[in-house]
Amino acid sequence: MKIVEVMKKFVEPQSVAIVGATRKTGEFSLNIMEHLISYGYQGKLYPINPNASEILGIKAYADISEIAGPVDLALIVTAREIVPDMLRSCAHKGIRCASVVAQGFSDALDREGHELSRRLTEIVQTTGIRVLGPNTFGTANAFINFSSSFARIKLDKNPVGIVCQSGLFFHGLPEFRLTGKCIDLGNACDIGFIEALEYFENDPQVKVIGLHIEGVNNPQGLLKTMARVTTQKPVIVLKTGRSEQAAKAMQSHTGSLAGNSLLWDAALQSAGAIRVNDLEEFYDTVRMFSLAPLLKNNKIAVATFSGAAGILAMDAMRDTELEIANLSDDTAAKLTRLAPAWLKVGNPVDYWPIMMGYPDQGRAMSEVMDILLSDDELGGVLFTQVAFTPNIGETIKMFLNYLAEKHPHKPFMSAVSGTYNGDCINGLQQDGKHLAFHTPERAARAFSRLWQYSKLRNGL
Amino acid sequence: MKIVEVMKKFVEPQSVAIVGATRKTGEFSLNIMEHLISYGYQGKLYPINPNASEILGIKAYADISEIAGPVDLALIVTAREIVPDMLRSCAHKGIRCASVVAQGFSDALDREGHELSRRLTEIVQTTGIRVLGPNTFGTANAFINFSSSFARIKLDKNPVGIVCQSGLFFHGLPEFRLTGKCIDLGNACDIGFIEALEYFENDPQVKVIGLHIEGVNNPQGLLKTMARVTTQKPVIVLKTGRSEQAAKAMQSHTGSLAGNSLLWDAALQSAGAIRVNDLEEFYDTVRMFSLAPLLKNNKIAVATFSGAAGILAMDAMRDTELEIANLSDDTAAKLTRLAPAWLKVGNPVDYWPIMMGYPDQGRAMSEVMDILLSDDELGGVLFTQVAFTPNIGETIKMFLNYLAEKHPHKPFMSAVSGTYNGDCINGLQQDGKHLAFHTPERAARAFSRLWQYSKLRNGL
Repeated sequence: MKIVEVMKKFVEPQSVAIVGATRKTGEFSLNIMEHLISYGYQGKLYPINPNASEILGIKAYADISEIAGPVDLALIVTAREIVPDMLRSCAHKGIRCASVVAQGFSDALDREGHELSRRLTEIVQTTGIRVLGPNTFGTANAFINFSSSFARIKLDKNPVGIVCQSGLFFHGLPEFRLTGKCIDLGNACDIGFIEALEYFENDPQVKVIGLHIEGVNNPQGLLKTMARVTTQKPVIVLKTGRSEQAAKAMQSHTGSLAGNSLLWDAALQSAGAIRVNDLEEFYDTVRMFSLAPLLKNNKIAVATFSGAAGILAMDAMRDTELEIANLSDDTAAKLTRLAPAWLKVGNPVDYWPIMMGYPDQGRAMSEVMDILLSDDELGGVLFTQVAFTPNIGETIKMFLNYLAEKHPHKPFMSAVSGTYNGDCINGLQQDGKHLAFHTPERAARAFSRLWQYSKLRNGL
Repeated sequence: MKIVEVMKKFVEPQSVAIVGATRKTGEFSLNIMEHLISYGYQGKLYPINPNASEILGIKAYADISEIAGPVDLALIVTAREIVPDMLRSCAHKGIRCASVVAQGFSDALDREGHELSRRLTEIVQTTGIRVLGPNTFGTANAFINFSSSFARIKLDKNPVGIVCQSGLFFHGLPEFRLTGKCIDLGNACDIGFIEALEYFENDPQVKVIGLHIEGVNNPQGLLKTMARVTTQKPVIVLKTGRSEQAAKAMQSHTGSLAGNSLLWDAALQSAGAIRVNDLEEFYDTVRMFSLAPLLKNNKIAVATFSGAAGILAMDAMRDTELEIANLSDDTAAKLTRLAPAWLKVGNPVDYWPIMMGYPDQGRAMSEVMDILLSDDELGGVLFTQVAFTPNIGETIKMFLNYLAEKHPHKPFMSAVSGTYNGDCINGLQQDGKHLAFHTPERAARAFSRLWQYSKLRNGL
């Protein structure tokens, strides 16, 4: 079976056996089947539990061999000791794919863990069954309301594919969830980054790919695949384990070796991937690529409600390849017509004195932005504002959505701070048209990441 | 009058004249008096407006000279042209302090702005009236429900004093507001950083001081004052204008010169101040010092729900002076007793496998943390968790509050990610006992800032 077909069974299963399904229910029971039912997953479910005849109203089986129909994917959630036996039963039944959720293999430091790990590899080699994990949350796919995570999660149909080595990435933030589609490699005893990347390369539902890498067994193969994929879709990489101590901790986390951080910098760059520095930047960058079109040039206009916020954005653009554009005479003239006589219009465009002359402040902001977004010489526009009342937050959201619809091909991002910024930013993300961040610096950083990838795609 | 007494009139006024008070009311009217009434400010208000006999039920005056009683502070919110005349009237009435809210002085690039600016300085010199601004939000003081910001804000009694050159800092974030007490210097034609810093130095309500500096006229004097203040209270500095272009933009913002960024680095460090890199770090650091006790040593334990999150924290501690501690035999033995046999307990402490063996997961986390917080050899503890349901967010909040009360002298911070992390973090901030951030890296960075200042105060 081709690897993309294998991966489809992991990420788009139509039938799932849960080996070691629990009868406990409720918030802290970590009952995968209960979660799947609550998400609205429509595939067939086969709980395996020798002590139950049914679980949550669904017929249970004492043994995998008793299942009559085909099974795309087995989830193995038993104690580690019996995982090899369960895996053999799955292979015997003809199941081709198994996510081993159980922990305590090469991630454990005891001899039994390593022996169990060796036996898994042996079963993969002798039976041909493919294994995701062990020590994994498995997969998530918002498009079919599926997740094998034992923690309950929220699924959002974002065009985002994540490959990770931790369940951390299944959880998301209030404004954004990475699932989309998520593949947790865990200890990666069989399925690894290359297989997962090839799946997302060929997946029309995924526009942006994010990788959380602790370590890889075949970096050369991964970089080669990555170099091909990045010509089609942006690949964002959070490569962790920068310190010696962290590298050591990773061995007990997923049993992989970390490698040299500077080497990774160089290698990822030459493969066209975007390496980010921390979890916040990983979220920001993936979120940005899920919405923003590419930049045609690096000339940015900043429209700011406050001189100080404009300066913060400029500070953040220092040491990047972005330029604070000189405004064209035409654009400067249009803005000057809106401004009080004493205001010298420059870039950043300080629109606060303009707003003060308008009865409708939302309209003032909107007119300033519209002039900038209509200027073909500008690559993109960064907008800053403060949501200091719920109503102003709502006004900001409305006119940003309006402008995003009017200018769909112009990259355009906002920084919204203030007491009600969370509601405004989350609302914009839910509406799915415009991208807003919490601070000017985060928006400027996102623009710089966008230019990094736009250059690659424009052949610059 | 001594400068501290002058500053008290600006920040703790018992009577305020609003020169140019508007009769418009409602959300977008920017009516300072309406805001003051809604905050519950108890001082005396004198609106000055030649076209009104009363505003919002309060007697209005055509001219400042008509006011009978004493006035601590005048707020001048007229058009720029008449500000000098108004200021002279204030001085004539015996008012010693005026916040000039109007824009268009040295921040404007026209000749009239510079001429008006020159006249303000002249009035200060000849009459002895002290001026905050022009181009300022004035002052805010949550402890007396006062703010002269024309945008309505929320006031929280945080032990935080801010000196800034932008109204941006009056607005705050959902989880934290900098007001406390806030002094916006605006163009700083008279009152500057030194005067504001001396006030906060002597203010028992303020534990942490934050400065947003675009430029200063007397850097030597400021650094001298700062070196004295930092032996008593932490001083956090967001010095903006790192790029050439930003320095130019600042001239049209507050008319001040930016200076060389590297020189500022060195000077601020030798004055014992903590220079932060962006707006988010400014908030995080001020917030941290408002709650955390000092570190006794640099040995940190990380307790993490996920191997990956622990590694992110370690990555963020690389290139800092913090150490991931080797756990003492005693502490390791106590933790090992809670853990499954296959888990090798190290630092980071991966408590997920421990939690899985407990019926009450909140109790499991709490016991692990209690062991670490009770270890006198550890300087501090960083905790990571995910709020993936509202109830788990609530559980995390409860036991963190409990532990913070039990261990008030041990620095201890959390990173809470997940879909419901906002509610959890905001709730903890409101309870005012424990400090939580959005990502492990932000918590690690806060620890590193805490150590930087703890060393100074411990004479290390």
